Amino acid sequence: MPLQSIYWKDGKIVIIDQTKLPHTLEYKVLNNLNDVVDAIMKMRVRGAPLLGVTAALALAMVAYQNIDASTDILMKKIFEAGEKLKKTRPTAINLFWAIDRVLRAAENSRNPGKAVIEEALKIFNESIQECLNIAKIGQEVVEDGDILLTHCNTGSLATVVYGTALGIILYAAKLGKKIKVFVTETRPVMQGARLTTYELLNEGIETHLIPDTAVGYTMKKKGIKKVLVGADRILRDGTTYNKIGTYQIAILAKYHNIDFYVVAPTSTFDLKSTREEVKIEERSKDEVIKIYGKLIAPKDVLVFNPAFDETPPELITGIITEYKILKQPLEVNIVELFREVEYVRH
Amino acid sequence: MPLQSIYWKDGKIVIIDQTKLPHTLEYKVLNNLNDVVDAIMKMRVRGAPLLGVTAALALAMVAYQNIDASTDILMKKIFEAGEKLKKTRPTAINLFWAIDRVLRAAENSRNPGKAVIEEALKIFNESIQECLNIAKIGQEVVEDGDILLTHCNTGSLATVVYGTALGIILYAAKLGKKIKVFVTETRPVMQGARLTTYELLNEGIETHLIPDTAVGYTMKKKGIKKVLVGADRILRDGTTYNKIGTYQIAILAKYHNIDFYVVAPTSTFDLKSTREEVKIEERSKDEVIKIYGKLIAPKDVLVFNPAFDETPPELITGIITEYKILKQPLEVNIVELFREVEYVRH
Repeated sequence: MPLQSIYWKDGKIVIIDQTKLPHTLEYKVLNNLNDVVDAIMKMRVRGAPLLGVTAALALAMVAYQNIDASTDILMKKIFEAGEKLKKTRPTAINLFWAIDRVLRAAENSRNPGKAVIEEALKIFNESIQECLNIAKIGQEVVEDGDILLTHCNTGSLATVVYGTALGIILYAAKLGKKIKVFVTETRPVMQGARLTTYELLNEGIETHLIPDTAVGYTMKKKGIKKVLVGADRILRDGTTYNKIGTYQIAILAKYHNIDFYVVAPTSTFDLKSTREEVKIEERSKDEVIKIYGKLIAPKDVLVFNPAFDETPPELITGIITEYKILKQPLEVNIVELFREVEYVRH
Repeated sequence: MPLQSIYWKDGKIVIIDQTKLPHTLEYKVLNNLNDVVDAIMKMRVRGAPLLGVTAALALAMVAYQNIDASTDILMKKIFEAGEKLKKTRPTAINLFWAIDRVLRAAENSRNPGKAVIEEALKIFNESIQECLNIAKIGQEVVEDGDILLTHCNTGSLATVVYGTALGIILYAAKLGKKIKVFVTETRPVMQGARLTTYELLNEGIETHLIPDTAVGYTMKKKGIKKVLVGADRILRDGTTYNKIGTYQIAILAKYHNIDFYVVAPTSTFDLKSTREEVKIEERSKDEVIKIYGKLIAPKDVLVFNPAFDETPPELITGIITEYKILKQPLEVNIVELFREVEYVRH
């Protein structure tokens, strides 16, 4: 059974505390907005699609807790919560997208409390369905016998359930395709080592962990056929923001003639922003120089710790969405897809 | 003052225990051959040039401890010690080179015990002089204001003193060149985070630690001008074996039009072996999945943990040796250098 990383339960949110994995599978109840903000900041929940769902459910929780308040007070609380949630992490667009969508639903309803809860649960359910569609559509690129490489975590733990890039891989195994997967550690937060290996082993898939230093050499020596990664934000031209390390893996894939696929639902696309407008989060120095509280470097060293990087479209073979696989030229095909599905996001 | 990582003291060897850095600068006396083998295997001493000197001094210690034995017994002990030392780590050629050189000195002398000790101390002293020459010659590639990137540790702690790639950087700062250095963590053993930052900060140089995932993005965003790395073995055509991660950094440097220099004394060259003959050490799984004894991944995951990788000559701008900087075409210039210096190694 795949993990489910988040639940809505009687007006509260239950999450898997991902900082405890792979040691313990521990669920944590988030009782109020501050709990959610804290869980996002400390990466107890992480992964672009999951951040979107978490923010939506957080607004639902605020609505639920203020359901008997006047409309004015309720709206004030919800919009304040939205602002607070938007300040947690700047790069994943899903967070902003989900918050804006829920706030719009509140504005457009005569019963905003109910509308917020309904819209949040709709986002939650859609997210599950999107991942399932992605897993199916992505089978086009995974063949029996493939040796794959993935980075960071894009599985159930990055979504509600199933996952994006890892969802495709897990589903391929479920369909009986014999595959091997190489997983990068993904320093500094080690999502690959801690989470992705955990999910793959759960499904009985042959899983090889490699240090982030070994990506190029593994591509050269281990017959990697395809790279599949997730995304935190994708621009109109296909420029992809994803976990730090993605950019260099894309360059290495190009050098070794390996297909490089980005996998993300359309809620990850940002057709309005330019590269200059996207803020890449830089996280704390301690995230790099401390492991389990112990220093691994001199404490007075300077640290550059960007959480994400930017992969230009020319390094991307295709983007796998819940509707279809977008191939080159990416910009043309992205714009066309959004026209087709009449996806409106202002 | 630069660190000195190894001493010969009254027939014993004193080393800095590098596994204790950057927390404590702890010296350790190696009293016998087993102590040396253990120190090499556990990477208390590491770095290609230092491994050569350590092996040479280990043979000197065996000779010193058996100085009153018959020539037959002495030679047997020394040759057995040489065999044992050669089995510790397979990739750095300096280890084999130093052992063979000391054993040849023993064979060619009527007083092999004395010859072994003298030859080992000669290697020790030459190594210091080589590093100093490298540091000076390397200044040609480091300009005032440069922003440099280095990988692993190639400083005093990889040699007797001064270092190779890092030696050039430290010497540039000593000459008053204003430089900034970005240092990769160098997973899994973290020589960059633990050792290189320590040496750079010791000399008051602006030092930025980055996760191994951030190399590509740092090259793109931080104005890296040159990459300097060491080597564990360099073949006739310039193919370079060095710490895992070097290969991908070379590809990334090429992609970003950044000069990529390998820095190594001529004792690191292996003009006889082919790529197929070089054994790349694969180290234990625990080195990757445990940090300070604590698991960071599921314990039953498979791990690919090569200690080194192979960088082809076309990715290398130049090789900086104690004699000169070798530019492209590398093979022609390597062969010519070895002819010029009448370097004989059989």
